[in-house]
This record gives sequence, structure tokens and C-alpha cells, in this order.
Amino acid sequence: MQALLLDNGAARLTRVDDPRPAPGEALIQVRLTGLCRTDLELARGYMDFSGIPGHEFVGEVVQVNRPDGFPGGEWMGRRVVGEINAGCGRCAWCRGGLERHCPDRTVLGLAGRSGSLAEYLTLPLSNLHPVPGGVSDRAAVFTEPLAAALEILEQAHVPPGARVLVVGDGKLGLLAARVLQIHGCELLCLGSHEAKLDLLRRWGLRALHHQNFAGKRDFDLAVEASGSPGGFETARAALKPRGTLVLKSTYHGALTLNAALLVIDEITVLGSRCGPFAPALRLLEAGLVAVEELVSAAYPLSRAEEAFEHAARPEALKVLVTVP
Amino acid sequence: MQALLLDNGAARLTRVDDPRPAPGEALIQVRLTGLCRTDLELARGYMDFSGIPGHEFVGEVVQVNRPDGFPGGEWMGRRVVGEINAGCGRCAWCRGGLERHCPDRTVLGLAGRSGSLAEYLTLPLSNLHPVPGGVSDRAAVFTEPLAAALEILEQAHVPPGARVLVVGDGKLGLLAARVLQIHGCELLCLGSHEAKLDLLRRWGLRALHHQNFAGKRDFDLAVEASGSPGGFETARAALKPRGTLVLKSTYHGALTLNAALLVIDEITVLGSRCGPFAPALRLLEAGLVAVEELVSAAYPLSRAEEAFEHAARPEALKVLVTVP
Repeated sequence: MQALLLDNGAARLTRVDDPRPAPGEALIQVRLTGLCRTDLELARGYMDFSGIPGHEFVGEVVQVNRPDGFPGGEWMGRRVVGEINAGCGRCAWCRGGLERHCPDRTVLGLAGRSGSLAEYLTLPLSNLHPVPGGVSDRAAVFTEPLAAALEILEQAHVPPGARVLVVGDGKLGLLAARVLQIHGCELLCLGSHEAKLDLLRRWGLRALHHQNFAGKRDFDLAVEASGSPGGFETARAALKPRGTLVLKSTYHGALTLNAALLVIDEITVLGSRCGPFAPALRLLEAGLVAVEELVSAAYPLSRAEEAFEHAARPEALKVLVTVP
Repeated sequence: MQALLLDNGAARLTRVDDPRPAPGEALIQVRLTGLCRTDLELARGYMDFSGIPGHEFVGEVVQVNRPDGFPGGEWMGRRVVGEINAGCGRCAWCRGGLERHCPDRTVLGLAGRSGSLAEYLTLPLSNLHPVPGGVSDRAAVFTEPLAAALEILEQAHVPPGARVLVVGDGKLGLLAARVLQIHGCELLCLGSHEAKLDLLRRWGLRALHHQNFAGKRDFDLAVEASGSPGGFETARAALKPRGTLVLKSTYHGALTLNAALLVIDEITVLGSRCGPFAPALRLLEAGLVAVEELVSAAYPLSRAEEAFEHAARPEALKVLVTVP
């Protein structure tokens, strides 16, 4: 099959063998992949990744490897999205439903498992979620990042009356803002791209260029989705005592902070990663998140390298890669 | 009155005017002050502090300034300890019972209010707690640091079944360990002073020199009470995914950390400062914390400078200053 291969920071389109589903896994024909900031970072050498990237996808089940007596035949031909962490199935994390923290997990397109920038991928059946009929491919491909935004509400108790600051107007910042908006929170969004701030305003949100923000110690919750040390400090300084700072960016290198200020104000810093797919699909089915407005462009897999270049432009939001 | 005055990092014993209680405040004759690490840091110039330090005290109410109709006469002659943060009494924090986060607060011996290394101090009556008869002065003077240890349980839900690592064998680390021990937790304590580790072992706790610790990703909660960046990293690396790291030290300068690891493991970092006095006094009254074993030495106020020198020795635990 055709696939995009990253190797020592270089990306090239190539032909590789089709993957073969292990027992209990499905072979999925990819229809659409969304590029995220982590993919761009992988292409720059983050995590020393070599292999096929891509973890936000929608596809169709074309084969199921079912050992004798194993259920799962009903998955054939279904349009699916898939949770990206595949656990060992035996440890306490997996037994507790938190495969995404299994120490022996593979992660689609990120660690130990080829990703979706290819014609086919494999995932355990237990990772799959059928896409409801009313949700388009272009919406369904946002399930993974929308789940990551919902993870904030999975981890922290956010009262609907909370005052919330979202720092960063990238894709994840926008999705986090929308999730917290429909949760009922009083929101202010900070960013650095006028077009993205305008999109937030069209959604009915207050949005400011971060340079024009002077608010201090006024927020119960701050979501750091800018990925910059400056964004962390803006978020921290905006929090009331006992406030919560959700760290939603993975691509920081070292972060230097004043620990005494966290202690004096009793700030909670909450690292936050992958979230639950089921509620994300429910929000998409209900049409509550206008994710298709976030699509900047779509490229066929044969032009995946151009797609990466486009996604790296400051003004870009979601860039999709289609498999014909 | 006689007092220890810090000025530009220099400590000297001197005579100053007696403080005068504002309306609603008490004048308290100090009997005993405990030195804490923050006091040593103040003496080294931390927070640009000038004035009389000292915030862990036990004393006796000798005067009450009661405006017409103001209650409080029952405080005269009582032996008391006092919460160190005096709020404005009007803001949302004060009205919610969290004067210790009032943005306009004064803090005894730390900010805007002369401390207890003197013959007298003043505090609002609402800050005072009577010391139960069965609690000695030498035990009561630990109310403030014991409350700071209890603050961990105020802020975080710690299941009694939790596996907990305490990093640091200073006074606060020892008190935190004891509080979590009587909460029912499975504890391991790390330190660097054999005498302090032995004291923990006498309390029935497992205690190791931090260099002999090889455990990884095995703990639900880690308390960083060593105040060193190395201690932070030891605590972080010991946590299971979704674990909580309680930051209990205020005297770090800049802390440099790998934010991506906090995000990937969804770690919660919880800044933690002053705690509730009432439960601390209940534990002391019940004899559940053997605080008097933590006293290394006592000096009269006239030898307060020696007391500071003693408290700065690595093997020292609590050094007290008495007012004859």
C-alpha cells in the first residue's frame, strides 16, 4: 500500500506491505486523516519517531481477525473512528478502562503502531467506535481532538459557573473553548491569529489577541493550549488562588516556572492528554461543535508532504489528508 | 519590647515599641516560637523581608481591642495559637472562609505584620484558637506546620488505600508523613539524614535514603517536601499515570521541568501552603502526632541569633525560641 514514512525527520511517500490485523484486531481502510501539531513535531524529530504517522482518522473496517469463538463479525463494512492507545488488556489500567495509560500500550501513529497516513491501518476491535450516520467523514475525523478537549472535563470538576481562560487559538484551543462554552462557562480566549480569533467570535466567544490581555487573578480555570512557556505564564498569572491550570500541549521542551508562586496560590497544574471518544461522538452527532469550520484544506495522500507544509503555516487550522 | 529584627538579610536583637491591637484584634504575649525553613530563608533575603519574623507561636491574650458592642472579652488570659493570614474580612475569599488567600491579607511575620520573635504580637480575634488544656506549649507551637501538613488532605482526595511517597525528611516532610500514616496510607519516606530517617522508622514508617530509592511509577501520591529540583523529579518519576504531586516547599527558585511528561502521564501538580488549625489541634489533643520528638533545641529570645544558626544545621529539626 501507499504510505507516508517518517525516517530521521525526513518524510517520504513510499510503498510498504499492507498491515495484518492480529487476533482481535480489524484491518481498516483509511478514508481521511487529520494532521495535528504532534504530527508536525514528529516530522521534526520529536520522540525520535520512525514509521507511519497519523492518528486522527475515519475509515472502514474491511477485515476482522477473529480467533475461534471471538465475536466482532458485526464490525465488517462499518465506518469507524478509533481510540489511539492499544493496551495490553491485562494490567490494572486496562482492566480499569484506562488503556490509554497502559505502560505497555502501543499508540497509533505515535509509538509502536503504524498510523493512518496510509491506505490501511490495524487497531483492536475494542478501540473502535462506529460513526453515527449523520456525522460526515469531515466531522468524524475530529473525534480524537474533540475527545482530548473533553478530557479536561473528565479530569477536573469544572463548575458551569466557572470563569475560564483559554490560551492558544490552535485547533485544540478552539475545541477546548467550544467544549467549555457548551458546558456553560464564562470564557475568554487568547490567541495570536486574527482569523482564528474571528472564528471564536463567530461562535459567540470573547476572544482577544494575547498582547491586549491585562486581566489578572480573575479566572478559576485556565487552559494552556498555546504550547509556549509564555502561554503557561499567562495562564498561571490569570488564575485566582486555588485555580486550576490545564496543560494541554505536549510539545514543550523544558518549562521553567516559579514553583513558589504555585505553592503560595495553591495552584493545581493538570497534565491532560487523550480523552473519551463516546461523548465526543455524541456532541458531533448532536451538531454541537462546528468542527468542519476548522478545516483549512484537504490533500490526497499522494500529496501528503504538501499537506504537512500547509499545516505548518501559522494561519492554518486543520489540514486533512484523503485516501481516494 | 525586645524583638528580633531582620533588615536587608541581617538579624539583630533590638528594642521596639510594643504593637497595639487594632479594633477586633488581640495583643498576645508570646511564650514560644518555632523556627521554620521559611524563617531561615527570610534571614537570607527571601521575599525582601524586613521586620520581625516568626509565625509559629503559642502565647497568651493579654489585651483585646473591642469597639463598642464587639464581642471577644472571653479571650482575655487564654492560651492561644493563631492562623497567620489576616484577611480584609470583606472580599469573596474572606467571606468564604479562605482568608488565607485574601489578596489584601497581612501574614504574621511574613508580610505586613510583625511576627512572633518578640515579646508581643497582634492578631485579629478571628484568627485565634484556644489551646486545649492537655496540649503543652511545646506541642501547641506545632499547630501551624501540622495544619500545613493537613492541607494536603484539605486539597486532594487521598484514598486511605493510596500508595504515598514523601520526599524530604525535614519538619514538614515528617509531619506530612505522620498525617498520611494515620490516614491509613501505605507510605514510603525518602530523606538524606540518618537520624531523621530513624525517627520515621521509630514511628513505624518505611524510610530510605533517597540514593537507595529505585522505585518507579508505583505511587498514587507523592509529597515533595525536600525543596530541591531533584526532589521534584524523584517525586514525579515515582508517580503512576494520573498521580498527584503535592508541592509543599516554598523556597525553590526557578524549577525546570519536562512539561510533556506531566501531560503524557496526566499528572496533577498541586501547590499547597497553609492549612486548617482546628483539625491540627484535635490531632494534638488526641496525642496522635508525637511533635515534641521533633524539638532539637530551645533558646531564649535573647539568644535568637544562635537559634537561627542551630536551625540551619542539616541535622536540626525544630528549634524553639522561648520568651521568659
